[in-house]
Amino acid sequence: MIKVAIVGGTGYTGVELLRLLINHPQVQIQTITSRTEAGKNVTDLFPNLRGYLDLKFTKPENLTANDIVFFATPNGIAMQNTPSLLADGVKVIDLAADFRIKDVTIWEKWYGMTHNCPDLLEEAVYGLPELNRAKIAQAHLVANPGCYPTAVLLGFLPLIEAGIIDLDDLIADVKSGVSGAGRKANISTLMSEAGESFKAYNVAGHRHWPEICQNLNIIAGKQVDLTFVPHLLPMIRGIEATLYSKTLRSITEIQDIFVQHYQNEIFVDVLPLNSYPETRNVRGANTCQLAIHQSNNRLVILSVIDNLVKGAAGQAIQNMNIMSGLPENTGLTNVALTP
Amino acid sequence: MIKVAIVGGTGYTGVELLRLLINHPQVQIQTITSRTEAGKNVTDLFPNLRGYLDLKFTKPENLTANDIVFFATPNGIAMQNTPSLLADGVKVIDLAADFRIKDVTIWEKWYGMTHNCPDLLEEAVYGLPELNRAKIAQAHLVANPGCYPTAVLLGFLPLIEAGIIDLDDLIADVKSGVSGAGRKANISTLMSEAGESFKAYNVAGHRHWPEICQNLNIIAGKQVDLTFVPHLLPMIRGIEATLYSKTLRSITEIQDIFVQHYQNEIFVDVLPLNSYPETRNVRGANTCQLAIHQSNNRLVILSVIDNLVKGAAGQAIQNMNIMSGLPENTGLTNVALTP
Amino acid sequence: MIKVAIVGGTGYTGVELLRLLINHPQVQIQTITSRTEAGKNVTDLFPNLRGYLDLKFTKPENLTANDIVFFATPNGIAMQNTPSLLADGVKVIDLAADFRIKDVTIWEKWYGMTHNCPDLLEEAVYGLPELNRAKIAQAHLVANPGCYPTAVLLGFLPLIEAGIIDLDDLIADVKSGVSGAGRKANISTLMSEAGESFKAYNVAGHRHWPEICQNLNIIAGKQVDLTFVPHLLPMIRGIEATLYSKTLRSITEIQDIFVQHYQNEIFVDVLPLNSYPETRNVRGANTCQLAIHQSNNRLVILSVIDNLVKGAAGQAIQNMNIMSGLPENTGLTNVALTP
Amino acid sequence: MIKVAIVGGTGYTGVELLRLLINHPQVQIQTITSRTEAGKNVTDLFPNLRGYLDLKFTKPENLTANDIVFFATPNGIAMQNTPSLLADGVKVIDLAADFRIKDVTIWEKWYGMTHNCPDLLEEAVYGLPELNRAKIAQAHLVANPGCYPTAVLLGFLPLIEAGIIDLDDLIADVKSGVSGAGRKANISTLMSEAGESFKAYNVAGHRHWPEICQNLNIIAGKQVDLTFVPHLLPMIRGIEATLYSKTLRSITEIQDIFVQHYQNEIFVDVLPLNSYPETRNVRGANTCQLAIHQSNNRLVILSVIDNLVKGAAGQAIQNMNIMSGLPENTGLTNVALTP
Repeated sequence: MIKVAIVGGTGYTGVELLRLLINHPQVQIQTITSRTEAGKNVTDLFPNLRGYLDLKFTKPENLTANDIVFFATPNGIAMQNTPSLLADGVKVIDLAADFRIKDVTIWEKWYGMTHNCPDLLEEAVYGLPELNRAKIAQAHLVANPGCYPTAVLLGFLPLIEAGIIDLDDLIADVKSGVSGAGRKANISTLMSEAGESFKAYNVAGHRHWPEICQNLNIIAGKQVDLTFVPHLLPMIRGIEATLYSKTLRSITEIQDIFVQHYQNEIFVDVLPLNSYPETRNVRGANTCQLAIHQSNNRLVILSVIDNLVKGAAGQAIQNMNIMSGLPENTGLTNVALTP
Repeated sequence: MIKVAIVGGTGYTGVELLRLLINHPQVQIQTITSRTEAGKNVTDLFPNLRGYLDLKFTKPENLTANDIVFFATPNGIAMQNTPSLLADGVKVIDLAADFRIKDVTIWEKWYGMTHNCPDLLEEAVYGLPELNRAKIAQAHLVANPGCYPTAVLLGFLPLIEAGIIDLDDLIADVKSGVSGAGRKANISTLMSEAGESFKAYNVAGHRHWPEICQNLNIIAGKQVDLTFVPHLLPMIRGIEATLYSKTLRSITEIQDIFVQHYQNEIFVDVLPLNSYPETRNVRGANTCQLAIHQSNNRLVILSVIDNLVKGAAGQAIQNMNIMSGLPENTGLTNVALTP
Repeated sequence: MIKVAIVGGTGYTGVELLRLLINHPQVQIQTITSRTEAGKNVTDLFPNLRGYLDLKFTKPENLTANDIVFFATPNGIAMQNTPSLLADGVKVIDLAADFRIKDVTIWEKWYGMTHNCPDLLEEAVYGLPELNRAKIAQAHLVANPGCYPTAVLLGFLPLIEAGIIDLDDLIADVKSGVSGAGRKANISTLMSEAGESFKAYNVAGHRHWPEICQNLNIIAGKQVDLTFVPHLLPMIRGIEATLYSKTLRSITEIQDIFVQHYQNEIFVDVLPLNSYPETRNVRGANTCQLAIHQSNNRLVILSVIDNLVKGAAGQAIQNMNIMSGLPENTGLTNVALTP
Repeated sequence: MIKVAIVGGTGYTGVELLRLLINHPQVQIQTITSRTEAGKNVTDLFPNLRGYLDLKFTKPENLTANDIVFFATPNGIAMQNTPSLLADGVKVIDLAADFRIKDVTIWEKWYGMTHNCPDLLEEAVYGLPELNRAKIAQAHLVANPGCYPTAVLLGFLPLIEAGIIDLDDLIADVKSGVSGAGRKANISTLMSEAGESFKAYNVAGHRHWPEICQNLNIIAGKQVDLTFVPHLLPMIRGIEATLYSKTLRSITEIQDIFVQHYQNEIFVDVLPLNSYPETRNVRGANTCQLAIHQSNNRLVILSVIDNLVKGAAGQAIQNMNIMSGLPENTGLTNVALTP
């Protein structure tokens, strides 16, 4: 059994980790921490877990008795605890952004704080299994990807690896449900504000943009040019990315390239031509559904994930499985909830 | 392995049976029927099942090779096929209403058709495990309860069995998400009609009222008097029942009675005093959450279920487990999806 | 022109007052106050008002230049400013609860603070025009009713005045959209928490219960017995009240009583028998729609309002019109937004 | 008073015309037709209009007694009646697509039927006032624009007229609420299907694409190259268009161009730099809100409208006002409903 701790267990990625880990056959959840809720039953906060989990929140201490520690904390927390955990032989999976950006200058600019262990950035593996599986298997520190980056990278990956699109002309028009904003008391994500309405936000700059660019650049081996516009959807779970690029290949060639690229990937599902992925197809599941389309002279890739699963907790468990030598879908076989 | 067929697999109870049975360790889904979709891949209609199910819809023929047949059909279909299936030794679980009412006159009045096998009504077991577990274990024909009846009966059951409420004064104010109306092309359940709005409906008479009354009467051993008002919620899944009755007992006594009554029930969860069950606590799960309250001089019981799970497909599988001698929660351990 | 000020203009009742007053032909909006937003354009906060309002938020000072001051503030604010405003000849309409309860002991118990001008409670008129029109016309201080009380009182009023229901046996099962919780940063009304879910709350005691009881008692001339259970709907605007009572009269008699009672009321619409009011029928409008039903042996009254209009800002303007000798629907003739 | 008829009054554009025309001071609604509902009170179908409209649906006959006839019918109906109405001196505003496309070959290809009065296509004026105001003022036949075209054209118009963007590189990523699909019994727009989910649709070809292209080409005086991807939002009202193009101008220059271009337009509101238009800002109002942004090296224009108002009924009334010599905003001054 893998002994795990979740640091910062009061947010949506925390409860989602719990939901999935509870039924993981090789995991023992030992510790869930929360400074503010310490001493309280986890099920008081998350009554959907009643009957499945008999644990109290504790303060974030004594984490070294675990094999793996998940950080489901705000940005800037994991980096404070990771060095000592790694020193004690504990593996770390950070669901926040502390170790996603290799260039500390860029990280500090976008996240507005000083990094306290920049030396670990090189060692940290960007935890997109479909890109970095081998490295993840050897990793002690995994930076779990952001939700938008997961949806966008999986959509562009086969195209860039195949070298068949114009890298100076990429657009990602992305849309997320409000759970992506977390379980924080903000006016802007009240149901009265975010319900029955739709808007773009952070067009001038979103923290996921440099994260995506970094990885696109690595894949391409050169600088790509990405326009990235996020939007807020009046719903809870789900991300859809509509990706625009230019190619000389036909749509059936592109379809073949995608099918072949992802043929061994259990969590990436390339739909048949003329299909439209809906976010509900993957609600609660660790799947990314992709579809290939063409509009006018442009290639259009549609990509959907559940932002809390493949975009956060599910992918973190997928990484844990890889790091632990388990079948990649262990504990991740639940079917999406539709309707 | 239990070989099962689902007749009428294109509605929401059909796809929900599939979602749950796919991960049931003792079940082999052999057949899914649909007259209109015969020949089509099930996953073309329900892409959330992609990767988990490789089956085509077939016409409803040759069902005798199964151990159990689930009818997820409109009312009036199961009764046409059940006699021959039973004769061939196949067990039947009807998720529609054909066998829920013992008195054929009442059934024919409320359902507006002639019953074609009224002799089976006596044999059919009303499939509420918390009420009829022993009979279900021996049954060949189970009438799976309606969604509202499940929520209401589980809330009144301990009170009536304990004989501590005024049976002439019961009120059930119930609310359901729109998935309860099924996957049918109706204007009234369009998102533009049912979204962002709330209304009562069928106050003068809803088919679930005689179903609830029949069972309350059986439990009470006398005629009870139930006022029943259904409402339509602007959401997809979930039923909440707010139940009003009069008692001389204190609320702590009532709480004790409920806790004791359901102490061995894995799918009925009595919340601590002062708790408020939310439908999302049980989204996708087979659980009924109950809470005991008092307002003014009345006892108020709050009951929530997922109408498609404990109110339909999940309870059907719970019944199948009981009929098959399996642990009751086999294949039903998935945790509710929150948020 | 009536010169008006709105104190506390940053909440939902504030913006709703603005939306309606902007098109009121006899009103000049002079002042909108907000301590936190003073100096900011109102349209920066509420871009739906762009092009219709050229005003900045100011600190709550110099209110005496107005004819009428609306308080759209949290409870406990209006009572601090009302005495001096009245002394200066300014009329006050409080949309909060400071002057709704006549008995200061009850008020202080439910609102958890000391009332600082209890002597005004007697003078304050409870601003339900359908109950107190004549007094409102003479009033200098109007306590605008709560949203639930408006929906419930309009439903019970004809029955109690006619003396034809059992006053010891009233139940109000009420449901509200989340805008009723206001524009405050709370986790519980985030879209991720309140969306796609439904729950009861405050069963043991809600502040609107004593408010309703006070008025039912006054109408009845004796103590009535009301059970009151509020619920939170996964939508933004709208309240539905399902009211249960016992009567010996037939449903057609009751229908006649309602039609006659409200025949001259422009904002109360008694639907024909067998109708179901939906909250969307009154979205954005100052109308209360009522329908009479029977279930089993009980009378069931269905009542819907828009909580922000007839349940708050619209009713406040209706009161202003009455206090100012204007036709009651001046500025309130916009049609409900459906779908 | 302008005497008007609405042909096909049972859909969402029909009821929206009624909602707005009821309060239009210069309009008398004489006739509302529906073959299926003839003889029924309009308020039976649309109870939000109770108290404001005392009319029955009639069969579509005797329309010549009107000054203006609005067609709120499915595509292909208006063209059957328009020639005789025009001959009788009645003006026609078609809210469907019969007269939007000048080239009958293109129209017949996209709409899959034979046009029965192609000679009128030249005479018909495309009713986007911000583009064709002078022609509309003289028109007898107005083709009211589609909802997506309205949002997209208003966003691109100033850029193309100024000649400052690359016309070979336009992308419109557009999103619509479900009311855009109309009041028709379809499974795909049931709340259980379209709620809490998001998807692209019709990427390969949507009928609004040739409509937009035709007008962009006219404005540009040459062939433009537009990629157009529509999506379905889990909400009722509202369209958002995110428009991508390339320009050498700075964002402040672009902002100035937009402000100047639309300075006299009462229904187009250019937000200050760094603003994000939300669809709720214009819910129920005839306004288009625009904002100028930049992402990476691309210009991003954000455009929101209410698809049923500026995208349909409101714009039709705006056109009627222009055709009738009335101030353009007569009857269109209601403020958007937020929240």
